[in-house]
Amino acid sequence: MAERDFIAQRLAPLATSAAARGLADDAAVWTPPLGRDLVFTHDVLACGVHYVPGDPPSDIAWKLLAVNLSDLAAMGAAPCGVLLGLGLSAAEDDDWRAAFSAGLGRALVHFGVALWGGDTVTGLAAAVLGLTAVGSVEPETALSRSGAKVGDDLWVSGSIGDAGLGLAIALGHAPHDAALLKRFRRPEPRLALGRALIGTASAAMDVSDGLLIDADRLAQASGVALAIDLGAVPVSDAAAARCPTLAERIALTTAGDDYELLFTAPPGVDVAALSGRTPVTRIGAVTAGRGVRLANQGVDVTPARLGWEH
Amino acid sequence: MAERDFIAQRLAPLATSAAARGLADDAAVWTPPLGRDLVFTHDVLACGVHYVPGDPPSDIAWKLLAVNLSDLAAMGAAPCGVLLGLGLSAAEDDDWRAAFSAGLGRALVHFGVALWGGDTVTGLAAAVLGLTAVGSVEPETALSRSGAKVGDDLWVSGSIGDAGLGLAIALGHAPHDAALLKRFRRPEPRLALGRALIGTASAAMDVSDGLLIDADRLAQASGVALAIDLGAVPVSDAAAARCPTLAERIALTTAGDDYELLFTAPPGVDVAALSGRTPVTRIGAVTAGRGVRLANQGVDVTPARLGWEH
Repeated sequence: MAERDFIAQRLAPLATSAAARGLADDAAVWTPPLGRDLVFTHDVLACGVHYVPGDPPSDIAWKLLAVNLSDLAAMGAAPCGVLLGLGLSAAEDDDWRAAFSAGLGRALVHFGVALWGGDTVTGLAAAVLGLTAVGSVEPETALSRSGAKVGDDLWVSGSIGDAGLGLAIALGHAPHDAALLKRFRRPEPRLALGRALIGTASAAMDVSDGLLIDADRLAQASGVALAIDLGAVPVSDAAAARCPTLAERIALTTAGDDYELLFTAPPGVDVAALSGRTPVTRIGAVTAGRGVRLANQGVDVTPARLGWEH
Repeated sequence: MAERDFIAQRLAPLATSAAARGLADDAAVWTPPLGRDLVFTHDVLACGVHYVPGDPPSDIAWKLLAVNLSDLAAMGAAPCGVLLGLGLSAAEDDDWRAAFSAGLGRALVHFGVALWGGDTVTGLAAAVLGLTAVGSVEPETALSRSGAKVGDDLWVSGSIGDAGLGLAIALGHAPHDAALLKRFRRPEPRLALGRALIGTASAAMDVSDGLLIDADRLAQASGVALAIDLGAVPVSDAAAARCPTLAERIALTTAGDDYELLFTAPPGVDVAALSGRTPVTRIGAVTAGRGVRLANQGVDVTPARLGWEH
């Protein structure tokens, strides 16, 4: 199927908003909501780097959308629309493209976000999939990484390390577990939590490269240090069962693809009361200094490698 | 140089707008101008497909920005900001990345557009460069491909076919000519013309895959036919000298990468009077029917292949 037919038959039916103009114009045209700031992010997933060639195409589509929406969540923004930049190889055959498009359509509906446009190129050596997500937020309320203050509590949503174990399963390096694999293939951006944190969180970001390395980035952006208690880091039952040793528990804090929110809030704020159905856990505190430290029962166990370094 | 250092040392210094937050947050935050529609486009350039591996990195950066701004021009929009999606291979070494970034910085300044954010991944087999451009336009005035009416005149800006000859030069298939090569490597988006056409043009698009194939797309979007007079198609002196035969002149109308604007306007409108310093030429008319026809002195010379089919 030529690019033209792929766009006309697979993607145009997903572009149902007026802004997309049926993908028939040179660009999309959108009237932004009055009195809102706009939030923009663009993340790229490369085959063999960010996903496994054997991952189901519908899950790859989900993940491409979800990792970008996770960036919007980290800013407290609500998603509005997306643009695709699909670079495809011969490995992404007609069946792959049909399954990808169908999965993308379902993901767009699930998250209530419009496909506005984009570009498709074929003939590449391997697939490279880009997506731009546009969101909106009340003026001057967007969260940032830079507001953490000494004495704040450090929180994280959900559970840490599941996706890293899911990657090992996807690669055939670990026994199957549907829930862990799903955490790797179909991350859930914490959009509702991000919006709920506006006005409360002093700093926020999403955890994509590993809890510790992302905590280190938040610490750097805020000019503070973060002290994390390993025993407090939330771990799923499945992950706990697979990681009985201290070394394995530490490794969970350096695994990527969690797409949880890491955030700070003034001490004593009952974050759990405002996070609704999203579980949140206090895992440490903001202290004076620089960098991140991980402690286990009071003993520093900070590993040399904090996560996925690009 | 790691991705992190490339972003910090090469790209962050270009991201000077407040919206970009120094590329230190998960996303950009921008307050859109009051009472404007926003225009979004995303185009991808793949090494070996859209540019030649030996093209200067600064020219590749220019082209990546220019082809996207050309889409904004086709809608009559003024550019505001861009997000990058850079997929790089080992061939894009530190020198390449430095030259690319420097060239991108100059192009951003030239066009008065802000770098808001994006993503960089490395380790690909070949470079794939995506860019999202965001523009703005007066509400409900954006141009489209779909408004051409029977009896309208058909116009094009600049000259047609130079970039195709420039590609042949870049590939080493034709003798050097700096002006023709520049048309391929450093296209000039017709931003001022696009804005000037608002309220006058009944339909518009940019010519990226060849005059004839893009005219065919405009005809299809508008539900009309377009009749083009080959003798009226503007050709540079350099292109005319290289293309003395009828077949060669026809080939110019199927060559890609012109990034001129193709547009229709009611008959009798003096488009040249409102186009300022941008040359425009009437090349035909909108007629009843479907598709595009190219005539030379009244004889149909429409080629079987209209341009670059994706």
